[in-house]
Amino acid sequence: MLRRIGVFDSGIGGLTVLRRLREAFPVLDMIYLGDLARVPYGGRSVETITRYAVDDAAFLLRRDVDAVVAACGTVSSNSLDALRERFDVPIYGVIDSAARRAAATKTGAVGVIGTQATVKSGAYERRIHAADPSVRVISRACPLIVPLVENGVGPGDILAETVCGRYLADFREAGIDRLIMGCTHYPLYRTAFERLLPDAEMIDVGEALAADLREIFGEGAGEGRTEFFVTERSAAFDELVRNIDPLVDPESIRVAQIED
Amino acid sequence: MLRRIGVFDSGIGGLTVLRRLREAFPVLDMIYLGDLARVPYGGRSVETITRYAVDDAAFLLRRDVDAVVAACGTVSSNSLDALRERFDVPIYGVIDSAARRAAATKTGAVGVIGTQATVKSGAYERRIHAADPSVRVISRACPLIVPLVENGVGPGDILAETVCGRYLADFREAGIDRLIMGCTHYPLYRTAFERLLPDAEMIDVGEALAADLREIFGEGAGEGRTEFFVTERSAAFDELVRNIDPLVDPESIRVAQIED
Repeated sequence: MLRRIGVFDSGIGGLTVLRRLREAFPVLDMIYLGDLARVPYGGRSVETITRYAVDDAAFLLRRDVDAVVAACGTVSSNSLDALRERFDVPIYGVIDSAARRAAATKTGAVGVIGTQATVKSGAYERRIHAADPSVRVISRACPLIVPLVENGVGPGDILAETVCGRYLADFREAGIDRLIMGCTHYPLYRTAFERLLPDAEMIDVGEALAADLREIFGEGAGEGRTEFFVTERSAAFDELVRNIDPLVDPESIRVAQIED
Repeated sequence: MLRRIGVFDSGIGGLTVLRRLREAFPVLDMIYLGDLARVPYGGRSVETITRYAVDDAAFLLRRDVDAVVAACGTVSSNSLDALRERFDVPIYGVIDSAARRAAATKTGAVGVIGTQATVKSGAYERRIHAADPSVRVISRACPLIVPLVENGVGPGDILAETVCGRYLADFREAGIDRLIMGCTHYPLYRTAFERLLPDAEMIDVGEALAADLREIFGEGAGEGRTEFFVTERSAAFDELVRNIDPLVDPESIRVAQIED
């Protein structure tokens, strides 16, 4: 029986996954860790990403979680096997559930957008092809979206529209019917993607994962509390936490030292 | 007599300072360290920035440099005193020379652009006011410029023009006659700034520092060689090195382990 889930990300993007998990599991206790002192992980070496992810998961396990979610595309695509070898609780990433949804494509062509490290790893492509080798997967790194989101540029801003328009141009030609938003920041730009690709279903990796976990574990038991830890304080984190749950008191966000 | 200068930055921006130093000191030997494994420093705590800067300077000193240049606005504005307390060679940042040039304003109003950490530190403002307390200093953090530069968006691109137009709007009203490009990436957008502020003199922090060092030390002695070290390999670094000096062989860039 699940009581406490630990969720970590390099920064604030994982809060979009936490929001979906909260919606699916209102009674569970959750602990979120944002490693703001070492963000961003995308662009670092696999060795470095794995070292950071081990620190993050170990921190959550010291707080007695029953399962760990790596709410970070970069960790999920590079370091999940290493985490599973090292720790005894179930560990989930954001790739598998989204990939299975994508593999159910009707046009036979799907799109994947993510950070450079995620796209370079080919993780979504491999998982989609594991489900159906005939699916055509078009992947595209979109490195400018995260800085835009983190600097408060909304999805309706001309900057967001221009950047997304360039990144998604190839997808329009290719006739994809599903787009995996393969970075946890991207759900915040969902409306921009939908305007550019009105015929494609947007796959939110947190939503896909939360639905799968609900099927595996049922509703669980707990008191429905959420604790927030960061490795360094940031105003952007406080603000995004407040957007996701207006009842959260930013004063309750604690700074944690997680490195050995 | 100077023979070898060590230059470090959190990433690739410091290469614009190195270029100005090479122009001013063609016979000196130079060692450049880019801490790509831990970039960006801007946005981190002062304690973290100082710890990283100490690692960087110590690495260069183990290679027998006669002077160290922190070619990084974030380090220069937060950690220079800590470095000077700890190490015996002359240590320079990118603030002082640029601030003195700005203080010579004729309209009495100057602008400063930089990362969030640099602007928040108030370092340029303090140094300008140390030279002339009556100068009006208008500072603005421009956090989107670095990601644009690092993703190959040129200064003539509509994205660059839109972003710079928003950041510099206040400066146009204020009648500034000098703008400190207070982040080492910004010289790459100099033409965009010049279009928006045609009456202002652009102050390149590397150019200002190189001119001052030339006055202090003369031309020095050495073999005019440059060595490049990074803490993690990146294609963007290789490309920018090649742009700065087409004769540099990217194969000569070495990966260094600098943490204790």
